[in-house]
Amino acid sequence: MHSNSTHLQLLVNMTLTSWAAQNKYLNNLLATFSDEQFAKEVAPGKNTGTYLVGHLIAVSDAMLPLLGFGNKHYPELENIFIKNPDKSGLEKPGMSELKEQLKAVNAALDKHFNSLNVEEWFEPHTAVSTEDFAKEPHRNKLNVVISRTNHMANHIGQLLLLK
Amino acid sequence: MHSNSTHLQLLVNMTLTSWAAQNKYLNNLLATFSDEQFAKEVAPGKNTGTYLVGHLIAVSDAMLPLLGFGNKHYPELENIFIKNPDKSGLEKPGMSELKEQLKAVNAALDKHFNSLNVEEWFEPHTAVSTEDFAKEPHRNKLNVVISRTNHMANHIGQLLLLK
Repeated sequence: MHSNSTHLQLLVNMTLTSWAAQNKYLNNLLATFSDEQFAKEVAPGKNTGTYLVGHLIAVSDAMLPLLGFGNKHYPELENIFIKNPDKSGLEKPGMSELKEQLKAVNAALDKHFNSLNVEEWFEPHTAVSTEDFAKEPHRNKLNVVISRTNHMANHIGQLLLLK
Repeated sequence: MHSNSTHLQLLVNMTLTSWAAQNKYLNNLLATFSDEQFAKEVAPGKNTGTYLVGHLIAVSDAMLPLLGFGNKHYPELENIFIKNPDKSGLEKPGMSELKEQLKAVNAALDKHFNSLNVEEWFEPHTAVSTEDFAKEPHRNKLNVVISRTNHMANHIGQLLLLK
Protein backbone atom coordinates (compact mmCIF):
# COMPACT_ATOMS: atom_id res chain seq x y z
CA MET A 1 0.00 0.00 0.00
CA HIS A 2 1.16 3.47 -0.81
CA SER A 3 0.28 6.62 1.06
CA ASN A 4 -1.64 9.50 -0.50
CA SER A 5 1.53 11.54 -0.38
CA THR A 6 3.46 8.97 -2.43
CA HIS A 7 0.70 8.79 -5.01
CA LEU A 8 0.40 12.55 -5.14
CA GLN A 9 4.12 12.94 -5.87
CA LEU A 10 3.91 10.14 -8.42
CA LEU A 11 0.98 11.72 -10.25
CA VAL A 12 2.61 15.15 -10.30
CA ASN A 13 5.67 13.48 -11.80
CA MET A 14 3.53 11.61 -14.35
CA THR A 15 1.97 14.91 -15.41
CA LEU A 16 5.35 16.61 -15.78
CA THR A 17 6.74 13.59 -17.64
CA SER A 18 3.83 13.80 -20.07
CA TRP A 19 4.69 17.45 -20.78
CA ALA A 20 8.38 16.56 -21.18
CA ALA A 21 7.51 13.73 -23.59
CA GLN A 22 5.64 16.09 -25.92
CA ASN A 23 8.53 18.54 -25.81
CA LYS A 24 10.94 15.76 -26.64
CA TYR A 25 8.69 14.74 -29.53
CA LEU A 26 8.72 18.36 -30.80
CA ASN A 27 12.50 18.57 -30.46
CA ASN A 28 12.89 15.34 -32.40
CA LEU A 29 10.82 16.81 -35.24
CA LEU A 30 12.97 19.95 -35.17
CA ALA A 31 16.09 17.82 -35.39
CA THR A 32 14.89 15.69 -38.30
CA PHE A 33 12.89 18.01 -40.59
CA SER A 34 14.70 20.46 -42.84
CA ASP A 35 13.95 24.21 -42.78
CA GLU A 36 12.38 23.74 -46.22
CA GLN A 37 10.00 21.16 -44.78
CA PHE A 38 8.95 23.55 -42.01
CA ALA A 39 8.32 26.28 -44.58
CA LYS A 40 5.56 24.15 -46.14
CA GLU A 41 1.88 24.18 -45.16
CA VAL A 42 0.86 21.10 -43.16
CA ALA A 43 -2.13 20.81 -45.53
CA PRO A 44 -3.13 23.01 -48.48
CA GLY A 45 -4.14 26.47 -47.24
CA LYS A 46 -3.35 25.62 -43.60
CA ASN A 47 -0.56 26.81 -41.29
CA THR A 48 3.09 26.28 -42.18
CA GLY A 49 5.34 24.22 -39.95
CA THR A 50 7.30 27.37 -39.13
CA TYR A 51 4.17 29.13 -37.91
CA LEU A 52 3.15 26.16 -35.74
CA VAL A 53 6.62 25.95 -34.19
CA GLY A 54 6.56 29.69 -33.47
CA HIS A 55 3.06 29.34 -32.06
CA LEU A 56 4.15 26.56 -29.70
CA ILE A 57 7.15 28.59 -28.51
CA ALA A 58 4.97 31.67 -27.93
CA VAL A 59 2.47 29.61 -25.90
CA SER A 60 5.25 27.98 -23.86
CA ASP A 61 6.88 31.38 -23.29
CA ALA A 62 3.56 32.73 -21.97
CA MET A 63 3.57 29.95 -19.35
CA LEU A 64 6.41 31.77 -17.55
CA PRO A 65 4.24 34.70 -16.34
CA LEU A 66 1.11 32.52 -16.11
CA LEU A 67 2.89 30.21 -13.67
CA GLY A 68 4.49 33.10 -11.76
CA PHE A 69 7.97 32.28 -13.03
CA GLY A 70 8.79 35.75 -14.38
CA ASN A 71 8.49 37.61 -17.64
CA LYS A 72 8.30 36.19 -21.12
CA HIS A 73 11.64 35.80 -22.86
CA TYR A 74 10.27 36.72 -26.31
CA PRO A 75 7.14 38.87 -25.87
CA GLU A 76 7.24 39.83 -29.55
CA LEU A 77 6.25 36.26 -30.51
CA GLU A 78 2.68 36.72 -29.21
CA ASN A 79 1.77 39.22 -31.92
CA ILE A 80 3.31 37.17 -34.72
CA PHE A 81 2.27 33.66 -33.64
CA ILE A 82 -0.80 33.97 -31.40
CA LYS A 83 -2.67 37.20 -32.13
CA ASN A 84 -2.13 36.99 -35.87
CA PRO A 85 -2.47 34.16 -38.38
CA ASP A 86 0.28 32.64 -40.48
CA LYS A 87 -0.43 34.80 -43.54
CA SER A 88 -0.40 38.09 -41.59
CA GLY A 89 2.53 39.44 -43.57
CA LEU A 90 4.42 40.01 -40.29
CA GLU A 91 8.09 39.14 -40.44
CA LYS A 92 8.84 35.84 -38.68
CA PRO A 93 12.07 34.64 -37.10
CA GLY A 94 13.79 31.92 -39.15
CA MET A 95 13.88 28.31 -38.02
CA SER A 96 17.40 28.58 -36.57
CA GLU A 97 16.30 31.49 -34.38
CA LEU A 98 13.10 29.67 -33.39
CA LYS A 99 15.12 26.63 -32.37
CA GLU A 100 17.28 28.77 -30.08
CA GLN A 101 14.19 30.38 -28.62
CA LEU A 102 12.53 27.03 -27.95
CA LYS A 103 15.67 25.86 -26.20
CA ALA A 104 15.80 28.95 -24.00
CA VAL A 105 12.10 28.86 -23.10
CA ASN A 106 12.21 25.18 -22.24
CA ALA A 107 15.35 25.64 -20.15
CA ALA A 108 13.60 28.39 -18.17
CA LEU A 109 10.46 26.32 -17.71
CA ASP A 110 12.46 23.24 -16.68
CA LYS A 111 14.42 25.21 -14.10
CA HIS A 112 11.22 26.49 -12.49
CA PHE A 113 9.38 23.17 -12.82
CA ASN A 114 12.19 21.49 -10.90
CA SER A 115 12.09 24.12 -8.16
CA LEU A 116 8.40 23.70 -7.30
CA ASN A 117 7.33 21.31 -4.59
CA VAL A 118 4.11 19.34 -4.85
CA GLU A 119 2.02 21.81 -2.84
CA GLU A 120 3.14 24.73 -5.02
CA TRP A 121 1.78 23.03 -8.13
CA PHE A 122 -1.68 23.33 -6.58
CA GLU A 123 -1.42 27.09 -6.11
CA PRO A 124 -3.47 29.29 -8.45
CA HIS A 125 -1.96 30.38 -11.73
CA THR A 126 -1.68 34.14 -12.14
CA ALA A 127 -4.77 34.60 -14.36
CA VAL A 128 -7.35 33.37 -11.83
CA SER A 129 -8.79 35.57 -9.07
CA THR A 130 -8.74 34.54 -5.42
CA GLU A 131 -12.55 34.32 -5.41
CA ASP A 132 -12.70 32.13 -8.50
CA PHE A 133 -9.87 29.92 -7.29
CA ALA A 134 -11.69 29.29 -4.00
CA LYS A 135 -14.58 27.85 -6.02
CA GLU A 136 -12.47 26.28 -8.79
CA PRO A 137 -9.32 24.81 -7.20
CA HIS A 138 -8.51 22.97 -10.43
CA ARG A 139 -7.38 26.31 -11.89
CA ASN A 140 -3.93 25.68 -10.48
CA LYS A 141 -0.45 25.69 -11.98
CA LEU A 142 -0.41 22.00 -12.76
CA ASN A 143 -3.59 22.27 -14.80
CA VAL A 144 -1.85 24.81 -17.02
CA VAL A 145 0.77 22.15 -17.74
CA ILE A 146 -1.92 19.54 -18.51
CA SER A 147 -3.75 21.85 -20.88
CA ARG A 148 -0.56 23.01 -22.62
CA THR A 149 0.55 19.40 -23.05
CA ASN A 150 -2.66 18.60 -24.94
CA HIS A 151 -2.30 21.78 -26.96
CA MET A 152 1.22 20.80 -27.97
CA ALA A 153 0.11 17.25 -28.87
CA ASN A 154 -2.61 18.71 -31.09
CA HIS A 155 -0.11 20.76 -33.10
CA ILE A 156 2.52 18.01 -33.16
CA GLY A 157 -0.09 15.87 -34.91
CA GLN A 158 -0.24 18.54 -37.59
CA LEU A 159 3.55 18.95 -37.82
CA LEU A 160 3.87 15.19 -38.38
CA LEU A 161 2.10 15.66 -41.70
CA LEU A 162 5.22 17.45 -42.99
CA LYS A 163 6.94 14.05 -43.06
CA MET B 1 -4.16 24.47 3.33
CA HIS B 2 -5.34 21.31 1.64
CA SER B 3 -4.42 17.80 2.60
CA ASN B 4 -2.54 15.44 0.31
CA SER B 5 -5.71 13.42 -0.01
CA THR B 6 -7.69 16.43 -1.27
CA HIS B 7 -4.99 17.28 -3.79
CA LEU B 8 -4.71 13.70 -4.93
CA GLN B 9 -8.45 13.49 -5.60
CA LEU B 10 -8.30 16.87 -7.35
CA LEU B 11 -5.43 15.84 -9.60
CA VAL B 12 -7.08 12.53 -10.50
CA ASN B 13 -10.18 14.53 -11.44
CA MET B 14 -8.09 17.00 -13.47
CA THR B 15 -6.58 14.09 -15.40
CA LEU B 16 -9.98 12.54 -16.11
CA THR B 17 -11.41 15.94 -17.07
CA SER B 18 -8.57 16.38 -19.54
CA TRP B 19 -9.47 13.04 -21.16
CA ALA B 20 -13.16 13.98 -21.21
CA ALA B 21 -12.35 17.34 -22.82
CA GLN B 22 -10.55 15.68 -25.73
CA ASN B 23 -13.46 13.28 -26.20
CA LYS B 24 -15.88 16.18 -26.18
CA TYR B 25 -13.69 17.91 -28.78
CA LEU B 26 -13.80 14.76 -30.95
CA ASN B 27 -17.57 14.45 -30.57
CA ASN B 28 -17.99 18.08 -31.58
CA LEU B 29 -16.02 17.40 -34.76
CA LEU B 30 -18.17 14.35 -35.46
CA ALA B 31 -21.29 16.45 -35.03
CA THR B 32 -20.15 19.28 -37.31
CA PHE B 33 -18.24 17.64 -40.18
CA SER B 34 -20.12 15.84 -42.94
CA ASP B 35 -19.40 12.23 -43.89
CA GLU B 36 -17.91 13.60 -47.13
CA GLN B 37 -15.48 15.71 -45.13
CA PHE B 38 -14.37 12.68 -43.11
CA ALA B 39 -13.82 10.73 -46.33
CA LYS B 40 -11.08 13.22 -47.34
CA GLU B 41 -7.40 12.93 -46.52
CA VAL B 42 -6.30 15.38 -43.81
CA ALA B 43 -3.38 16.29 -46.10
CA PRO B 44 -2.47 14.94 -49.55
CA GLY B 45 -1.43 11.29 -49.29
CA LYS B 46 -2.11 11.14 -45.54
CA ASN B 47 -4.85 9.38 -43.55
CA THR B 48 -8.52 10.12 -44.16
CA GLY B 49 -10.70 11.52 -41.40
CA THR B 50 -12.65 8.24 -41.37
CA TYR B 51 -9.49 6.24 -40.75
CA LEU B 52 -8.40 8.54 -37.92
CA VAL B 53 -11.82 8.33 -36.25
CA GLY B 54 -11.76 4.53 -36.54
CA HIS B 55 -8.20 4.51 -35.19
CA LEU B 56 -9.22 6.57 -32.15
CA ILE B 57 -12.19 4.29 -31.45
CA ALA B 58 -10.00 1.17 -31.76
CA VAL B 59 -7.44 2.65 -29.36
CA SER B 60 -10.15 3.67 -26.86
CA ASP B 61 -11.78 0.24 -27.15
CA ALA B 62 -8.43 -1.39 -26.34
CA MET B 63 -8.35 0.61 -23.09
CA LEU B 64 -11.13 -1.63 -21.75
CA PRO B 65 -8.95 -4.77 -21.38
CA LEU B 66 -5.80 -2.70 -20.70
CA LEU B 67 -7.50 -1.13 -17.69
CA GLY B 68 -9.05 -4.42 -16.56
CA PHE B 69 -12.57 -3.32 -17.46
CA GLY B 70 -13.43 -6.31 -19.64
CA ASN B 71 -13.26 -7.25 -23.30
CA LYS B 72 -13.15 -4.98 -26.29
CA HIS B 73 -16.54 -4.17 -27.78
CA TYR B 74 -15.28 -4.15 -31.38
CA PRO B 75 -12.13 -6.34 -31.59
CA GLU B 76 -12.34 -6.29 -35.40
CA LEU B 77 -11.37 -2.61 -35.41
CA GLU B 78 -7.78 -3.36 -34.39
CA ASN B 79 -6.96 -5.06 -37.68
CA ILE B 80 -8.56 -2.34 -39.79
CA PHE B 81 -7.48 0.76 -37.89
CA ILE B 82 -4.35 -0.11 -35.89
CA LYS B 83 -2.51 -3.03 -37.48
CA ASN B 84 -3.17 -1.86 -41.04
CA PRO B 85 -2.88 1.52 -42.73
CA ASP B 86 -5.71 3.54 -44.27
CA LYS B 87 -5.08 2.26 -47.79
CA SER B 88 -5.06 -1.42 -46.78
CA GLY B 89 -8.06 -2.22 -48.95
CA LEU B 90 -9.85 -3.65 -45.89
CA GLU B 91 -13.52 -2.78 -45.70
CA LYS B 92 -14.20 -0.05 -43.12
CA PRO B 93 -17.39 0.68 -41.18
CA GLY B 94 -19.14 3.84 -42.39
CA MET B 95 -19.20 7.03 -40.36
CA SER B 96 -22.68 6.37 -38.94
CA GLU B 97 -21.53 3.01 -37.61
CA LEU B 98 -18.29 4.50 -36.27
CA LYS B 99 -20.26 7.17 -34.44
CA GLU B 100 -22.37 4.49 -32.72
CA GLN B 101 -19.24 2.56 -31.82
CA LEU B 102 -17.54 5.63 -30.36
CA LYS B 103 -20.62 6.31 -28.26
CA ALA B 104 -20.71 2.73 -26.95
CA VAL B 105 -16.97 2.61 -26.17
CA ASN B 106 -17.06 5.94 -24.37
CA ALA B 107 -20.13 4.94 -22.38
CA ALA B 108 -18.35 1.76 -21.24
CA LEU B 109 -15.17 3.66 -20.35
CA ASP B 110 -17.13 6.35 -18.49
CA LYS B 111 -19.03 3.78 -16.45
CA HIS B 112 -15.79 2.13 -15.33
CA PHE B 113 -13.94 5.41 -14.84
CA ASN B 114 -16.68 6.55 -12.47
CA SER B 115 -16.53 3.29 -10.51
CA LEU B 116 -12.81 3.48 -9.68
CA ASN B 117 -11.65 5.08 -6.48
CA VAL B 118 -8.43 7.06 -6.30
CA GLU B 119 -6.30 4.16 -5.09
CA GLU B 120 -7.49 1.91 -7.89
CA TRP B 121 -6.22 4.37 -10.49
CA PHE B 122 -2.72 3.68 -9.18
CA GLU B 123 -2.97 -0.05 -9.70
CA PRO B 124 -1.00 -1.58 -12.58
CA HIS B 125 -2.59 -1.78 -16.00
CA THR B 126 -2.91 -5.29 -17.37
CA ALA B 127 0.12 -5.14 -19.71
CA VAL B 128 2.77 -4.61 -17.03
CA SER B 129 4.28 -7.44 -14.99
CA THR B 130 4.34 -7.41 -11.19
CA GLU B 131 8.15 -7.17 -11.24
CA ASP B 132 8.20 -4.26 -13.65
CA PHE B 133 5.44 -2.45 -11.81
CA ALA B 134 7.34 -2.69 -8.54
CA LYS B 135 10.18 -0.75 -10.18
CA GLU B 136 8.00 1.46 -12.39
CA PRO B 137 4.89 2.45 -10.38
CA HIS B 138 3.99 5.06 -13.01
CA ARG B 139 2.81 2.21 -15.24
CA ASN B 140 -0.59 2.45 -13.61
CA LYS B 141 -4.10 2.82 -14.98
CA LEU B 142 -4.15 6.58 -14.75
CA ASN B 143 -1.03 6.85 -16.88
CA VAL B 144 -2.85 4.98 -19.65
CA VAL B 145 -5.47 7.72 -19.56
CA ILE B 146 -2.80 10.45 -19.71
CA SER B 147 -1.04 8.85 -22.65
CA ARG B 148 -4.28 8.16 -24.56
CA THR B 149 -5.40 11.76 -23.98
CA ASN B 150 -2.25 13.03 -25.69
CA HIS B 151 -2.67 10.49 -28.46
CA MET B 152 -6.22 11.70 -29.08
CA ALA B 153 -5.13 15.35 -29.04
CA ASN B 154 -2.48 14.53 -31.65
CA HIS B 155 -5.04 13.08 -34.05
CA ILE B 156 -7.66 15.73 -33.32
CA GLY B 157 -5.10 18.28 -34.50
CA GLN B 158 -5.03 16.38 -37.80
CA LEU B 159 -8.83 16.03 -38.02
CA LEU B 160 -9.15 19.81 -37.56
CA LEU B 161 -7.47 20.21 -40.95
CA LEU B 162 -10.64 18.84 -42.58
CA LYS B 163 -12.37 22.13 -41.72
